[in-house]
Amino acid sequence: MNGAPAGPSRGGRGLAQGEHTAHGACVSETPLGHRRWAIADGYIPRESHGPEPEMTSHETASILNASGHDAHVRFTIYFADREPAGPYEVTVPARRTRHVRFNDLNDPEPIPLGTDFSCVIESDQPIVVQHTRLDSRQAENALITTIAFPA
Amino acid sequence: MNGAPAGPSRGGRGLAQGEHTAHGACVSETPLGHRRWAIADGYIPRESHGPEPEMTSHETASILNASGHDAHVRFTIYFADREPAGPYEVTVPARRTRHVRFNDLNDPEPIPLGTDFSCVIESDQPIVVQHTRLDSRQAENALITTIAFPA
Amino acid sequence: MNGAPAGPSRGGRGLAQGEHTAHGACVSETPLGHRRWAIADGYIPRESHGPEPEMTSHETASILNASGHDAHVRFTIYFADREPAGPYEVTVPARRTRHVRFNDLNDPEPIPLGTDFSCVIESDQPIVVQHTRLDSRQAENALITTIAFPA
Amino acid sequence: MNGAPAGPSRGGRGLAQGEHTAHGACVSETPLGHRRWAIADGYIPRESHGPEPEMTSHETASILNASGHDAHVRFTIYFADREPAGPYEVTVPARRTRHVRFNDLNDPEPIPLGTDFSCVIESDQPIVVQHTRLDSRQAENALITTIAFPA
Repeated sequence: MNGAPAGPSRGGRGLAQGEHTAHGACVSETPLGHRRWAIADGYIPRESHGPEPEMTSHETASILNASGHDAHVRFTIYFADREPAGPYEVTVPARRTRHVRFNDLNDPEPIPLGTDFSCVIESDQPIVVQHTRLDSRQAENALITTIAFPA
Repeated sequence: MNGAPAGPSRGGRGLAQGEHTAHGACVSETPLGHRRWAIADGYIPRESHGPEPEMTSHETASILNASGHDAHVRFTIYFADREPAGPYEVTVPARRTRHVRFNDLNDPEPIPLGTDFSCVIESDQPIVVQHTRLDSRQAENALITTIAFPA
Repeated sequence: MNGAPAGPSRGGRGLAQGEHTAHGACVSETPLGHRRWAIADGYIPRESHGPEPEMTSHETASILNASGHDAHVRFTIYFADREPAGPYEVTVPARRTRHVRFNDLNDPEPIPLGTDFSCVIESDQPIVVQHTRLDSRQAENALITTIAFPA
Repeated sequence: MNGAPAGPSRGGRGLAQGEHTAHGACVSETPLGHRRWAIADGYIPRESHGPEPEMTSHETASILNASGHDAHVRFTIYFADREPAGPYEVTVPARRTRHVRFNDLNDPEPIPLGTDFSCVIESDQPIVVQHTRLDSRQAENALITTIAFPA
């Protein structure tokens, strides 16, 4: 938004917002995303059906770091009846994606199952966050997703 | 957005948008969220399958209040063929989340089942709202979610 | 956004963005929503399971008009291989919601089943639009929803 | 947002943001959409149930080009553990929609199944992108959708 592109100016009029490397991949010059995101509806179902780990009930924050720098990301978890937990620290390398399962966040403490929570995600690089839940409490799984809120 | 951070300025260059307390939880300095949100597609299915209350068909507004002040929240419900109902009043304490089921909103009047509605949510603190529905009319539940519209 | 609130200024410091009438309903002073919205993924499945009309496969645009004026809304439907169809005209009265099923849009022409489309929704009043699909091609229904794109 | 409408100014006070042609279709004067979008949670399930191709597990980016010019669109795919792939080039003609299945992107290389990815979509015209996944790994399909992130 407010970042001036580094590197030489482009004379062309084709695609205004990315440069493509020799092997064709886009490297964003202008920041892509936000540094703070929120997910309000967090909930890891207590039960699962189907083969593990693919069909285990889970809650995921998919994080895209399209920048040229590693992103140091911190999760803070909010609850209904106690002080927040965290920060949980995750690194998403430059030009990589990482689909973080909340079930795997154990340090400083595991996130309780069957409990309402919300989450704030902060990064030192612009990132994009999408929230997905696989609910396999019943025989057939249910899936939900939404782009998180860029706060 | 337009709120100046309270407290001393930070010299560091790490995470620009939150302070972490002694036990590690993020307390937002800059407002996180909006004070007004809208959900256009409200509908509480009339029937349910599965054990109550977990598998009862329901409609939820998950509210994150990451601020340091209690949020006083008011729901107004809009219908297709009558004047709006409300306000329904809910408090979300500072640094807490609350997943509000529309089925539980009874004052000033219960929200009718099997009826199209929309909802406007207003708060005296910035909040983040996510809308989720569990539809258990058939044997296997269906789930939908979306970040609400920050109005 | 750019509309100045009508009516007297408020001295209070409670809820900054709505007035509540004698019977408690919120009437928005500041515009709530946008006048143009887009849904990119339109598709009405060709088959259905379950009782009609509740379980008929359908695609819905839920529209909230929280303003004090009737909203005159126009849908334009875009296809993969022909010129757009429309406008389809719908009125959403002041302070009302209307959940419009694309299956019911027949004038100037019905929307074909089993066909990819997109939709632009324009209104003379600010509105909020949410997109939902019930897919009942298989025995158990699947539901998707998202806030439409405020264009 | 920042594009001045072409053509003569309108005196009317009806719908402020589109012109309708003789046969009723909306042609946007003001740009509708963004030129860069991101999808963070990409994943093409490895298995499917049900008749092909309708019920094959798939991941779709539905793209609306409401402008009067063909949109030249480039996908870049980001992975967890290797450099990005792309660009994948797709054209969406003026006033058309195209629902692009990631399964069909084969040049410069197919997108691997059962693998986490993210996607950045760039266009030389403003477009609207919505992300949808049909997961038919189990007997009953699961569907998710969200408007992509306008980056």
